[in-house]
Amino acid sequence: MRVELGDRSYEIHIGNDWLPQLIPWLDFIPRTSAMMIITDAKVAEIAGNRVLELMRSGGFKVELAVFPGGEDHKNLTTVGTLTEKMVELGLDRHSTVIALGGGIPGDVAGFAASIYMRGIRYIQVPTTLLAQVDSSVGGKTGVNLPQGKNLVGTFHQPSLVFIDVSFIKTLPEREYLTGLAEVIKYGIIWDSGFFGFLEQNQSAIGSRDQECLQQIVHRCCAIKADIVAQDETEGGIRALLNLGHTFGHALEALTGYRRYNHGEAVAIGIVLAARLAAESGVLSSSDHDRIQNLIVSLGLPTSYERLVSSDIINQMRKDKKSVGGQLQLVLPTGIGSSQVFANISESQIARVLY
Amino acid sequence: MRVELGDRSYEIHIGNDWLPQLIPWLDFIPRTSAMMIITDAKVAEIAGNRVLELMRSGGFKVELAVFPGGEDHKNLTTVGTLTEKMVELGLDRHSTVIALGGGIPGDVAGFAASIYMRGIRYIQVPTTLLAQVDSSVGGKTGVNLPQGKNLVGTFHQPSLVFIDVSFIKTLPEREYLTGLAEVIKYGIIWDSGFFGFLEQNQSAIGSRDQECLQQIVHRCCAIKADIVAQDETEGGIRALLNLGHTFGHALEALTGYRRYNHGEAVAIGIVLAARLAAESGVLSSSDHDRIQNLIVSLGLPTSYERLVSSDIINQMRKDKKSVGGQLQLVLPTGIGSSQVFANISESQIARVLY
Repeated sequence: MRVELGDRSYEIHIGNDWLPQLIPWLDFIPRTSAMMIITDAKVAEIAGNRVLELMRSGGFKVELAVFPGGEDHKNLTTVGTLTEKMVELGLDRHSTVIALGGGIPGDVAGFAASIYMRGIRYIQVPTTLLAQVDSSVGGKTGVNLPQGKNLVGTFHQPSLVFIDVSFIKTLPEREYLTGLAEVIKYGIIWDSGFFGFLEQNQSAIGSRDQECLQQIVHRCCAIKADIVAQDETEGGIRALLNLGHTFGHALEALTGYRRYNHGEAVAIGIVLAARLAAESGVLSSSDHDRIQNLIVSLGLPTSYERLVSSDIINQMRKDKKSVGGQLQLVLPTGIGSSQVFANISESQIARVLY
Repeated sequence: MRVELGDRSYEIHIGNDWLPQLIPWLDFIPRTSAMMIITDAKVAEIAGNRVLELMRSGGFKVELAVFPGGEDHKNLTTVGTLTEKMVELGLDRHSTVIALGGGIPGDVAGFAASIYMRGIRYIQVPTTLLAQVDSSVGGKTGVNLPQGKNLVGTFHQPSLVFIDVSFIKTLPEREYLTGLAEVIKYGIIWDSGFFGFLEQNQSAIGSRDQECLQQIVHRCCAIKADIVAQDETEGGIRALLNLGHTFGHALEALTGYRRYNHGEAVAIGIVLAARLAAESGVLSSSDHDRIQNLIVSLGLPTSYERLVSSDIINQMRKDKKSVGGQLQLVLPTGIGSSQVFANISESQIARVLY
């Protein structure tokens, strides 16, 4: 599958239990320039050495750089440490970084690669469902500031995305569910057939059936590739991918990024967006119910602990999508369709925050 | 004057003692989104409040952010502090940063703007000769790592470059000379007529005649705009702008960035490059002498304190232009012409390092 972006186009390869196949796909990378694999401590333990040995057996001059995981370490300090290590290892302008792991290593490694010597190549090898269906495709990189997530970053497309769905087998349940929230999102914003597929395959999804997962990852990547090809830097349609995220980011921030993981917050955000859409008359109540039901039955949360609604709204206003303090919200307008609304009043939002 | 880069094209406006004219040029900037002027402590003292008041009188919602000057503060920590301040002041995706000052504020502010919310607009208002003829045009941004200068950064074109040559009047002599090194460089690599103009106007240059300076800045910006339009991200011809810089960066690094300022190191680097070119038979000895003579007579250094030549060569090898450890050097091949050479041996280099 290909993400069509002119001279920044790239391939996404999806398979099951096929890690060694990575090497043939790297044929375009020169063996002469040093490389670095960036991952976090958790992924390093389960896959770090395996990927390192594999790359070396492929003839690459490569080292592993591990940083402590978690949102707390997704910051400019970590990027400084990693880029200093890139200098030490002799990475040059023709070098390549391998981003191995979930969304955090992917975003951090992509950002480090995008600014090292004003930008070198990187390759995404995502190991979580969330990263495979969302963050590894599309070139958004970044780290957090104390005031919020991903407030600094770049658009820097990877040169290749290599996905092995077998990594999903060993994910903790919460990590798996966080990815499912994004999966459901694609169905809602873009593809009613895919939403129906999810409704009909709940037990295969629950048991992490590898065949089913491969289909899901493939469909999500195809949708994202389609959207990104139409709008690389989120001037328009790409904003639809933020369904549930404005609410979600506010929930995460107000609970110190400890109470909810990303997908849980997004799931709650989708439910709130659907409720707001239904109450505003842009979504039918039956579609609202299908959305809410799928989220519940796949095991994701739909409600949140008591927070003051004015705090939530103030936090939402700080979102990157806000312009001149005016909120922009994505609302579903059906199963498989959605739209950005800029004219939602605070009282409308406050009404669904209960 | 215009830098032609498709949808990233922008204008360079050059005048003398015309700071208030900045406001009409900013007509395309929305008054609704917050702005931030970034400068260093030294420039803040002489121009910070003047520019702040001017912008406010133009109806902009703007604040001033000042960081301590010098290469020591051109780092990721400063970028972190500045981007956090951008969040505090409520800058959004439609906001604009004003980079006010010399090369360091320009590079730092441009980098901060390029990564804030994955990139917002910025405007260059350069106040030193070096920044006016070189760093403010072309979109190179960045900061230092402990191991070297500008090792992280981005290509992010400004939306406008506004130059007031009257700022040059009050520059300390060393600051003025550091800019002249880059001025001479343009003559050598690109424009023999301009090189002749410099030879013939040495006393006007020495007295900082404003009319003469305006001509010089105009010519240098035109050359840089021409080169950047042909090669935005230094895949080819833009590398010629690095004449003297590979030697120069090594000298700066080996002396802890304290002994030489940038232009002094570049001047010495140009003399070494000319010597290497002459000894390699690609530059006539009369052209070599013209280069050396102009540098001497404008008051720039041509020799350096004793350093071990193998240290210099090792340091040069760490340069961003090196690929797979192989040095790339720009050498003059005449007055107004130059070329990148990748096949210079270490012994050839060692021979000119005396």
